[in-house]
Amino acid sequence: MISAAIVGGTGYTGVELIRLLSAHPEVSIDLLTSRSEAGTRADEIFPSLRGISDIVFSDLGDETLDALQKCDVVFFATPHGVAMKQAEALTQAGVKVVDLAADFRLQSLIDFETWYQQPHSCPELLKSAVYGLPEINREKLADALVVGNPGCYPTTAILGLKPIIELQNKQDTRLIEPRIVIDAKSGVSGAGRQASLALNYAETTDNFKAYGIKGHRHLPEIEQGIEQLLSSQFKHKIRFLPHLVPMIRGMFSTIHLELTTEGCAVDWQQAFETSYAEEAFIDVLPAGVYPDTRSVRASNRLRIAVHQDATRGELTVMVVQDNLVKGAAGQAIQNMNVMFGLDETLGLNAAPIVP
Amino acid sequence: MISAAIVGGTGYTGVELIRLLSAHPEVSIDLLTSRSEAGTRADEIFPSLRGISDIVFSDLGDETLDALQKCDVVFFATPHGVAMKQAEALTQAGVKVVDLAADFRLQSLIDFETWYQQPHSCPELLKSAVYGLPEINREKLADALVVGNPGCYPTTAILGLKPIIELQNKQDTRLIEPRIVIDAKSGVSGAGRQASLALNYAETTDNFKAYGIKGHRHLPEIEQGIEQLLSSQFKHKIRFLPHLVPMIRGMFSTIHLELTTEGCAVDWQQAFETSYAEEAFIDVLPAGVYPDTRSVRASNRLRIAVHQDATRGELTVMVVQDNLVKGAAGQAIQNMNVMFGLDETLGLNAAPIVP
Amino acid sequence: MISAAIVGGTGYTGVELIRLLSAHPEVSIDLLTSRSEAGTRADEIFPSLRGISDIVFSDLGDETLDALQKCDVVFFATPHGVAMKQAEALTQAGVKVVDLAADFRLQSLIDFETWYQQPHSCPELLKSAVYGLPEINREKLADALVVGNPGCYPTTAILGLKPIIELQNKQDTRLIEPRIVIDAKSGVSGAGRQASLALNYAETTDNFKAYGIKGHRHLPEIEQGIEQLLSSQFKHKIRFLPHLVPMIRGMFSTIHLELTTEGCAVDWQQAFETSYAEEAFIDVLPAGVYPDTRSVRASNRLRIAVHQDATRGELTVMVVQDNLVKGAAGQAIQNMNVMFGLDETLGLNAAPIVP
Amino acid sequence: MISAAIVGGTGYTGVELIRLLSAHPEVSIDLLTSRSEAGTRADEIFPSLRGISDIVFSDLGDETLDALQKCDVVFFATPHGVAMKQAEALTQAGVKVVDLAADFRLQSLIDFETWYQQPHSCPELLKSAVYGLPEINREKLADALVVGNPGCYPTTAILGLKPIIELQNKQDTRLIEPRIVIDAKSGVSGAGRQASLALNYAETTDNFKAYGIKGHRHLPEIEQGIEQLLSSQFKHKIRFLPHLVPMIRGMFSTIHLELTTEGCAVDWQQAFETSYAEEAFIDVLPAGVYPDTRSVRASNRLRIAVHQDATRGELTVMVVQDNLVKGAAGQAIQNMNVMFGLDETLGLNAAPIVP
Repeated sequence: MISAAIVGGTGYTGVELIRLLSAHPEVSIDLLTSRSEAGTRADEIFPSLRGISDIVFSDLGDETLDALQKCDVVFFATPHGVAMKQAEALTQAGVKVVDLAADFRLQSLIDFETWYQQPHSCPELLKSAVYGLPEINREKLADALVVGNPGCYPTTAILGLKPIIELQNKQDTRLIEPRIVIDAKSGVSGAGRQASLALNYAETTDNFKAYGIKGHRHLPEIEQGIEQLLSSQFKHKIRFLPHLVPMIRGMFSTIHLELTTEGCAVDWQQAFETSYAEEAFIDVLPAGVYPDTRSVRASNRLRIAVHQDATRGELTVMVVQDNLVKGAAGQAIQNMNVMFGLDETLGLNAAPIVP
Repeated sequence: MISAAIVGGTGYTGVELIRLLSAHPEVSIDLLTSRSEAGTRADEIFPSLRGISDIVFSDLGDETLDALQKCDVVFFATPHGVAMKQAEALTQAGVKVVDLAADFRLQSLIDFETWYQQPHSCPELLKSAVYGLPEINREKLADALVVGNPGCYPTTAILGLKPIIELQNKQDTRLIEPRIVIDAKSGVSGAGRQASLALNYAETTDNFKAYGIKGHRHLPEIEQGIEQLLSSQFKHKIRFLPHLVPMIRGMFSTIHLELTTEGCAVDWQQAFETSYAEEAFIDVLPAGVYPDTRSVRASNRLRIAVHQDATRGELTVMVVQDNLVKGAAGQAIQNMNVMFGLDETLGLNAAPIVP
Repeated sequence: MISAAIVGGTGYTGVELIRLLSAHPEVSIDLLTSRSEAGTRADEIFPSLRGISDIVFSDLGDETLDALQKCDVVFFATPHGVAMKQAEALTQAGVKVVDLAADFRLQSLIDFETWYQQPHSCPELLKSAVYGLPEINREKLADALVVGNPGCYPTTAILGLKPIIELQNKQDTRLIEPRIVIDAKSGVSGAGRQASLALNYAETTDNFKAYGIKGHRHLPEIEQGIEQLLSSQFKHKIRFLPHLVPMIRGMFSTIHLELTTEGCAVDWQQAFETSYAEEAFIDVLPAGVYPDTRSVRASNRLRIAVHQDATRGELTVMVVQDNLVKGAAGQAIQNMNVMFGLDETLGLNAAPIVP
Repeated sequence: MISAAIVGGTGYTGVELIRLLSAHPEVSIDLLTSRSEAGTRADEIFPSLRGISDIVFSDLGDETLDALQKCDVVFFATPHGVAMKQAEALTQAGVKVVDLAADFRLQSLIDFETWYQQPHSCPELLKSAVYGLPEINREKLADALVVGNPGCYPTTAILGLKPIIELQNKQDTRLIEPRIVIDAKSGVSGAGRQASLALNYAETTDNFKAYGIKGHRHLPEIEQGIEQLLSSQFKHKIRFLPHLVPMIRGMFSTIHLELTTEGCAVDWQQAFETSYAEEAFIDVLPAGVYPDTRSVRASNRLRIAVHQDATRGELTVMVVQDNLVKGAAGQAIQNMNVMFGLDETLGLNAAPIVP
């Protein structure tokens, strides 16, 4: 059994890690830390866990690090800036780290410090950290000590664009025009488990709005992901705008692309199906079938549909996922499975909940 | 024009007062106070008011009382305990007071201090305050200086029981068994406009629960209301349990009553229709028609249905209202209309919003 | 492996059966029938099943019965009146039957025919059918050929009252007054998967109402369940009113009971905990903890809280379940586990989904 | 008083017309027709109208036309294809017609017949019909006999783009690149009042999806609107994709535009404010303030925010409206006000409902 710790398990990604890891056949959650809730059973805060897990939040103070160092893997479900302070000591003790916050996502120090408004405390380790998208970095993940678990929006954007960028690389011809519009929509759980007037039921329900309009931290992460996929000379200008949907879970990213003449000649349905044929969690929907977010609710699946309008020169890619699973905790476990040489789908096979 | 002030207009009852009074043909909102938002236009906090009202929150400090004393009526949309500190000075200056909090609802000092955990600062004034249910206290309201605007649940409970109690009084015979069960359900806006984890969208949506299980402040208010209606020797034991419904506005009270043999002989549909025949805002639905909360959304109407099952000896009374209108701001304005000798429906005739 | 068939799998209980049975380690779904959808893959109708199950709806016409007779168990997720037409032939072939509709719930023919407005086609078989509440009929279920899977409301009502009735029996003293008020609330999925104006999103959302006011089919089922528990001379008058909550899944039953003097002396928290100490799916919450429906979402758990107010002589029992799982498909599988001598929790251990 | 008729008032735009016209000081609803509901009071179908309107649905058969011809104005809240069959007879009798369906929106016969799959029955009248966007066609509307009330999406798209197109015209320089992406989101009431599995609460709630992916009828209407605004040589390629949001009312259109060098030099906030300075219902939000749909709920206001990112060469226009008011019934009444020379805001001044 893999001995796992969760640091900061009082948020939605924390409880989702507990839910999923409790059913994982090769993992035992041996430590769950929280300063604010030390001494409290997790199922007191989340009664849904009654009968599922009897783990207790602990705050070991100075001894926390010692205890974490005895685990095989530590998941950080903490605010940005926490994991990077402990990652070095953990990796030196041979413990693998999966950070669900942003400390190890952006590989440019300048970008990190610009968007997260704090210096990075372990730039050397950052260099060796792997961006945790198994569908792209599976091989690197197998040897990774530190994994930066992707943001929810970047997961949809990068996986939605990957087959296009790769085909463009392969054909060495521009298939899509430079400007890419990603109009994204997320359920409210993406904003985290917090007391906030803006997230109050009566403020959020029967309402729709955009946010992060002046710039969202996931934009540089998407840009980095696309940049890394590009092996050719073609540049792209990514435009990204997130919106808040009155629903609990779910993310829908609409990617508007303009095809070049060469791009119009491609059978994109075929290209996507081929690209993801071997992926357990990526479901390219049949031509003419379009996704809705509930079709992945509570599961690690991400579904993609492509709609190609040759007459208008348009390609539309629609991507759905559960922001708390493939967009956070599920992907973290998928990364862990790869890091420990397990079957990548272990503990992640549960069906979506519909209705 | 009646010069009105609203003290503490940043909550949901506050914005509802602004919305309704802005359309009232005989009222001008001349003062709107808030400590936290002084200097801010109301429509910055509530963009829905853009183009409706250009009033600015003010905090006049020591001069606030002077300014309030120049108005004709002051609405307190504040936490419990605020109105009672200013009511005396206001009434002495001839200003009428409508308190939307609980300071002037319970006429028993002991009850007030038990349930609200604070001493009452003007017990003399409390004696002359009128409980603001126009359908019961219309005559007293005409001369009232201070009105305690009822709680939302008590409004539904008392008006749902009034025809029964009155008929029992009139017939001087017990028509219903002593125990009355009021199983009530409210939308989330009833909990106020506040940052609260329990009210977070992702905590509240697709969820249903009871609350106030160990005792809710509206119970003594309901008991007082029923007590005051009883002119006969019959006592009742009221049982009250509120629940939280994942909807913004709306309140539904289900009142379960057991009929005596004499009670089974009554035509309750007829009794209710007769009782409320002259009331502009009380709508007794035709036999066999049952209410839903949306049928009163954003309006001052309260609808009642009665279902009588002679075989089982059961009477069920179902009452719906918009908790922010007839349950709060609308009723406050209805009270004001009575207090100033205006047509009681002035400013309150807008149709419910469906869908 | 147990070979299972699902007749009529296009509704919400049908897709829930597919979801749960697909993850059951001892069951294989070998047949899925539907007239309207014959030839269609289940995952075309329910894209959430893509990658989970590749089963195809079939309509074998005259050969359907032959095919069903080759299975070990047949689940009927059909309208009322379908299972009873096939149950005899199936049981004669040694096939076990679990009917999720009402054909085998009410053991009184008169009651069945009164409430469901059709004659019963196999009254003999009805006599031997077992009411599928494992927490009550576990022993009978072990040998049952035909199981009537309980209605969702009766599951909450009967399990919420069982410890009380049983203690009353044991003490041979009336502990609660005869009249029992069950004020119940259900999410919309309980109304089934159908095109209906009343269930349209814009009609149902931000709205709350009662229904079945003139009499609901679950009332005689609750009465039968309580009757069967009563071994003493005490009678009860059950009153039941369901309401529709704007949420997808979840059921909350509030049971209002009046305690006798003897009943006031009982420690009901203790009584409930003792009663359900051995039950895997019944969770009696600690004193002072109250349930919400989401704490059981998508799981087979049913949670109960009891609140006792000795001063007022009141006992309140609050019961939550997921209407599609413990209230339907999950309970059907729990019954099947018992019928086949399997561990009762097999395939039913998944954690609730929160948020 | 203007004598008005509503043909087909059983849908959401119908009840919204009744609600709004009942409060209009210069209009009397004298006729309300429906085949399916003839003889039924409107407030039986919509109990929210109890006490607001006592009008009865009628089906006059052959005499319907006679009765309509006695009115001053007829609103058609019918499916596409109904108004065009009666419009000629009505206008010949001097009755003004406002069609809330699509019969008089598209001025190209080919476009109409392609997108609505039926021949147009009065192409001559179509030529003289006015597209009912008062902010664009106010002068023509003053003399119009037949008005095609715009689709909900086109209202947001055309009004969101108007200041840009007009400034481009004026400066005679391309300010935005040709391709315009309109990513639009609508509440469920936009799909109408109908029994439909896809609109069932349990299918729609906690879910998000795109629709009309292969082509939506509002696209040619948007293209026509933009085409008519363009006086210059510049062409645009409009891309439009609608999405369904789990909310009752509200529409949010996100318009993604790429600025040319000349376009980057424009102060777009200023340009929008200037363009709409005189419009009662168009609210250009201050710089840095962004809209949400609830800020216009149940009102005729449409709010616009512009966000300009000079560095990236991006302009984002966000437009919100209530799809049933400014997107349908409210706009129809605004058109009627103009057609009859009334104050354009008459009957349309009610504040939005928040929360």
